[in-house]
Amino acid sequence: MSGVLNVGLIGLGRLGSVYARNLAHRVPNARLVAVADRKADLREQFAAELGAVKVYESHLDLLQDKDVEAVVIITSTSTHKDVVMDAAACGKAIFCEKPMSLSLVSAYEMLHAVEKAGVFFHMAFQRRYDAGYLAAKKKVDDGVIGTPVVMTSISRDPFRPPLEFCDPKVSGGLIADMGVHDFDLGRMFMGEVATVHAIGGALAYPEMKSVGDIDNALIDMVFENGTLGSVQLSRNAVFGYDIRTEIWGTKGSLQIGYFQHTPILVMTQEGITHDVVPHFMQRFEGAYLTQIQDFVNRVTAGEPPSLTGADAIAAMRISLAATLSCHERRPVQVSEVDVPLHTIAG
Amino acid sequence: MSGVLNVGLIGLGRLGSVYARNLAHRVPNARLVAVADRKADLREQFAAELGAVKVYESHLDLLQDKDVEAVVIITSTSTHKDVVMDAAACGKAIFCEKPMSLSLVSAYEMLHAVEKAGVFFHMAFQRRYDAGYLAAKKKVDDGVIGTPVVMTSISRDPFRPPLEFCDPKVSGGLIADMGVHDFDLGRMFMGEVATVHAIGGALAYPEMKSVGDIDNALIDMVFENGTLGSVQLSRNAVFGYDIRTEIWGTKGSLQIGYFQHTPILVMTQEGITHDVVPHFMQRFEGAYLTQIQDFVNRVTAGEPPSLTGADAIAAMRISLAATLSCHERRPVQVSEVDVPLHTIAG
Amino acid sequence: MSGVLNVGLIGLGRLGSVYARNLAHRVPNARLVAVADRKADLREQFAAELGAVKVYESHLDLLQDKDVEAVVIITSTSTHKDVVMDAAACGKAIFCEKPMSLSLVSAYEMLHAVEKAGVFFHMAFQRRYDAGYLAAKKKVDDGVIGTPVVMTSISRDPFRPPLEFCDPKVSGGLIADMGVHDFDLGRMFMGEVATVHAIGGALAYPEMKSVGDIDNALIDMVFENGTLGSVQLSRNAVFGYDIRTEIWGTKGSLQIGYFQHTPILVMTQEGITHDVVPHFMQRFEGAYLTQIQDFVNRVTAGEPPSLTGADAIAAMRISLAATLSCHERRPVQVSEVDVPLHTIAG
Amino acid sequence: MSGVLNVGLIGLGRLGSVYARNLAHRVPNARLVAVADRKADLREQFAAELGAVKVYESHLDLLQDKDVEAVVIITSTSTHKDVVMDAAACGKAIFCEKPMSLSLVSAYEMLHAVEKAGVFFHMAFQRRYDAGYLAAKKKVDDGVIGTPVVMTSISRDPFRPPLEFCDPKVSGGLIADMGVHDFDLGRMFMGEVATVHAIGGALAYPEMKSVGDIDNALIDMVFENGTLGSVQLSRNAVFGYDIRTEIWGTKGSLQIGYFQHTPILVMTQEGITHDVVPHFMQRFEGAYLTQIQDFVNRVTAGEPPSLTGADAIAAMRISLAATLSCHERRPVQVSEVDVPLHTIAG
Repeated sequence: MSGVLNVGLIGLGRLGSVYARNLAHRVPNARLVAVADRKADLREQFAAELGAVKVYESHLDLLQDKDVEAVVIITSTSTHKDVVMDAAACGKAIFCEKPMSLSLVSAYEMLHAVEKAGVFFHMAFQRRYDAGYLAAKKKVDDGVIGTPVVMTSISRDPFRPPLEFCDPKVSGGLIADMGVHDFDLGRMFMGEVATVHAIGGALAYPEMKSVGDIDNALIDMVFENGTLGSVQLSRNAVFGYDIRTEIWGTKGSLQIGYFQHTPILVMTQEGITHDVVPHFMQRFEGAYLTQIQDFVNRVTAGEPPSLTGADAIAAMRISLAATLSCHERRPVQVSEVDVPLHTIAG
Repeated sequence: MSGVLNVGLIGLGRLGSVYARNLAHRVPNARLVAVADRKADLREQFAAELGAVKVYESHLDLLQDKDVEAVVIITSTSTHKDVVMDAAACGKAIFCEKPMSLSLVSAYEMLHAVEKAGVFFHMAFQRRYDAGYLAAKKKVDDGVIGTPVVMTSISRDPFRPPLEFCDPKVSGGLIADMGVHDFDLGRMFMGEVATVHAIGGALAYPEMKSVGDIDNALIDMVFENGTLGSVQLSRNAVFGYDIRTEIWGTKGSLQIGYFQHTPILVMTQEGITHDVVPHFMQRFEGAYLTQIQDFVNRVTAGEPPSLTGADAIAAMRISLAATLSCHERRPVQVSEVDVPLHTIAG
Repeated sequence: MSGVLNVGLIGLGRLGSVYARNLAHRVPNARLVAVADRKADLREQFAAELGAVKVYESHLDLLQDKDVEAVVIITSTSTHKDVVMDAAACGKAIFCEKPMSLSLVSAYEMLHAVEKAGVFFHMAFQRRYDAGYLAAKKKVDDGVIGTPVVMTSISRDPFRPPLEFCDPKVSGGLIADMGVHDFDLGRMFMGEVATVHAIGGALAYPEMKSVGDIDNALIDMVFENGTLGSVQLSRNAVFGYDIRTEIWGTKGSLQIGYFQHTPILVMTQEGITHDVVPHFMQRFEGAYLTQIQDFVNRVTAGEPPSLTGADAIAAMRISLAATLSCHERRPVQVSEVDVPLHTIAG
Repeated sequence: MSGVLNVGLIGLGRLGSVYARNLAHRVPNARLVAVADRKADLREQFAAELGAVKVYESHLDLLQDKDVEAVVIITSTSTHKDVVMDAAACGKAIFCEKPMSLSLVSAYEMLHAVEKAGVFFHMAFQRRYDAGYLAAKKKVDDGVIGTPVVMTSISRDPFRPPLEFCDPKVSGGLIADMGVHDFDLGRMFMGEVATVHAIGGALAYPEMKSVGDIDNALIDMVFENGTLGSVQLSRNAVFGYDIRTEIWGTKGSLQIGYFQHTPILVMTQEGITHDVVPHFMQRFEGAYLTQIQDFVNRVTAGEPPSLTGADAIAAMRISLAATLSCHERRPVQVSEVDVPLHTIAG
């Protein structure tokens, strides 16, 4: 493999287009050689914008392209299983945007397929590449706050998704869709989770009840080492994007996060006001770039992925246990959601 | 009753001495006429400092003093029941520092006694008098954040108490001792609590296990109206006193709290640093004064108390349910801790 | 002199009433025994509120009262000279609110009178007693920021005074009226001032030109030790009271000041907003109390005053030089404003 | 001219290398076709990193390259005049990093040359492209703060340059080298400057006196419309890079700037600490990219430059007048530094 990685990108939606532009312009050792999307207008727009890139309607055609060494999969979650398994069969290095899949069975099947094919498989969690979380992790590892004993993590979206997406059969529901990032941070900072307890409700958008989803949830976790975690999720951060994590230790604490977007304080008779980070793309723009750069670096260097399918499954198990807890109004052990091995194909 | 209230104060410990000085110097329509404490050195110190004040060893003698119209009780919690019932029997207006008592049975007996005697009875929760919480309450009532749907409340002490005080038989344990303020705020902002779930551990000070207490806890609450609450308690805020509440609403959010004590940013090669509020007295100095002023105003005006024994019992029930949840590792309905009526004396 | 100081207060205006209540309720070793004001309604209001206090129309009658050991003078600036000289003649300890007087000649005459009478004379600069400035001074003295090389001090009022007060013949003009506090801080942190240069204009309220005053000014200072200072003054801080000082040193910097009044962040679609300190009384309430306590303590202990007439004159000289600079559009040496000795009476 | 601009870059130093990478990877409609630098190691490093780019030792050879449509000049200031005039003679579109030159005569000669050649000429002031200043400008234009009446602008570097660079004959001295950005902001927000007054000294690094430079300066400005400006410059912001501007208006104020670099608060027994923006590249990384993108967009679209040589000269005149004021200890009219027309070659 040369020093430059030839990448094919599947899925040109909102987030996919960011990955496409990052790969085309901002990752020096990557070359975006092909894109695929079922929507003709998206394909045409990118063909015009990016010039020399090959354009496919079907991901299968892109996977057959010999120039494509690695694929970046940014399709809708329900297609992840098929596309990943196809890509594994074609021997491509794989970058897959979260969430891995909607069911644990599918996820185990994907993991099995990539392991069998022996291909590189990176499951995306962009927060792990954010400058704030990276610096916090280093400080924790350096002992600045002693031993972490409680993690508090807040993820609040500025508005609810369209109702059809809120359907738990599509998105997994609030806890799985949003919480998975916080559960992954829990694993990053505290360790594996033993039990969870969740409460929630459709409190800001009563219409969410019609599809069986909720808009606010609180999840408490006991980690295997006895430490504690609290996750707060919401769809009604009407003022902006509210992402905060606190690592509480025996010798101090780290607060990670910020609200202010442009560096301006407005001081008028209404008081002192500043704006807020509008949404995830503004908050994590740098992390998305750093993560895809890490993927390209590791594939070209022959190193193992930083984040694996096993990592994604571990976070997914917590999500599923928390969702179950919320439904059954009782604490749930994470191991309760495990899948009998015979149910996994392959 | 004249325009000035003659007050007797029982208990000259750390907090009692603050009340004594407030009553002597800073509440214009109060006159501190008598103090009582079992410790001779505290009595002598205040006699010297305050001049004309009468000094008693026994609270019973103070209660017999005809000059005393109202009593402020700042003794240790285990004595509250006896002192309050004695004061009620003497017909004094009563101000009682929280917590009301360690058992629900005692609390109901106290409530019964003051109701039977028909005396004024104020149960202290100073946070309700803090300028921040008052202004927040007004904004919530004005609809600034729409309908509140989640409350998050953090109370973290800068160090653990002496082990003998941590003993749940003395203090009620972490959840009852510290959380009662946050549970009261929950009632102030959200309504009555239906169920709680708590987790916790002796994570920062393992020696607390020897007395059966914990140093960190997370408590989730479902209010009767379906809204949610999260309370975080800790004894290891080694950097200072960490008190924050967030009221999360359908149209916005209020964050109440501050960390910085002196208004100085220090900018050196170590970064930008500021100090932190050291402890509760620095944080709530104004609230303690405002509360005792409210007590004096209401007694002299013949108005009912702002906070009653029923309020204290309501917060205590949540504390007890949360403590039970933490022990039994299950969600607990607040009504589970209720006391059979026949167990209450009087 | 007993351990409690009997104080008479002259001038029951807005600030005078704060001093009166502080002396009546919050300074344990002071007893407010008499007040004087020419306005009958103010006298009657305080007589009703404070009970046992004697009430005079003329300051001369108060000064004749043998019970009065010390006087606190909060009258209008134009009367300071006469009242202080009368009080000195009666042998009273004197606390005089800033500014000392409108002319340097008067100030020297006052200083001469109190020195000749040998009475205690404290000239008020409440910022020196603010917890922020005190803590900053200690840090500077401790070497936290190395050697101070630049001071920046901002004083901005939320609105302009009535035009009749803006008249420089009454108030001394913007630079003298407001800047004197910042010039005093310059002396506290950096040393004596050698030269000043000032610019300014009636930029926000053009009507101020009709009385010959300005509403915004910038003053640069070179201290005798070669270090630098910048003072910014304004009458149009329409959002609140804007008071900030920065001490810039060779090893770091201190920023002193804060904007937020109540500890609440309001997060709505308008952004994140907090309120602002409304005016000087809210900002410096504690400092006014600490300062008058210091006066009472020093008089009763027989110690010299913390701030003298010489201090007030030193700050006034800078004010006058800066005002002259602004008029003559040139740098001015502070010594240029000095008064020939033969012009001073006494 | 095609939709993609072929750019040659002259000068591969620290800032030049940032421009080179931006042009190579992050400006979609630019192609970096050639670079020139006198240092062989820098040329070789970029040849290896950037692959297809042509590499020249002399800027004259690069200017002869027919593939080069536009040049980006990031050489040392003393060479700007020759390189710009050579580029103008070759008919290239020109982007020139600030400062334009060290003497006003040279600057006028450059301006004359580019006007005569009729080439596109952009003089860089990256702060004008910073998201904070752009948003502030929009708010001011929208009337959010009423009419601006005072601008305060602080520029403080984290350390002093090597002494040989401090020599005013090389850098122009502190006021010209650093202040030019703030003077340009003054023009952006307030208008043209009428008079300046400056004070300064070698207060933190006495060794600067040996080369005739200073390390701290305060400059006051009166704008032609009568409004006021204050600029504070320092070389000893030992904690990081301190860049702040305040626009003070009749109806409110805007504070532009931020200190915190990574979004982490560290809370330990030392207090609450956060880091600081280390230097200009971290602070203005986005602005450098936005500015060069604007240059490429305007050249390819045939639009006039956003910032011209006349803009650079206007800011330079203020710098020179302020430097003169500092030397002569008197207010200086900006027009005093104007150059007689017959002294300008061309």
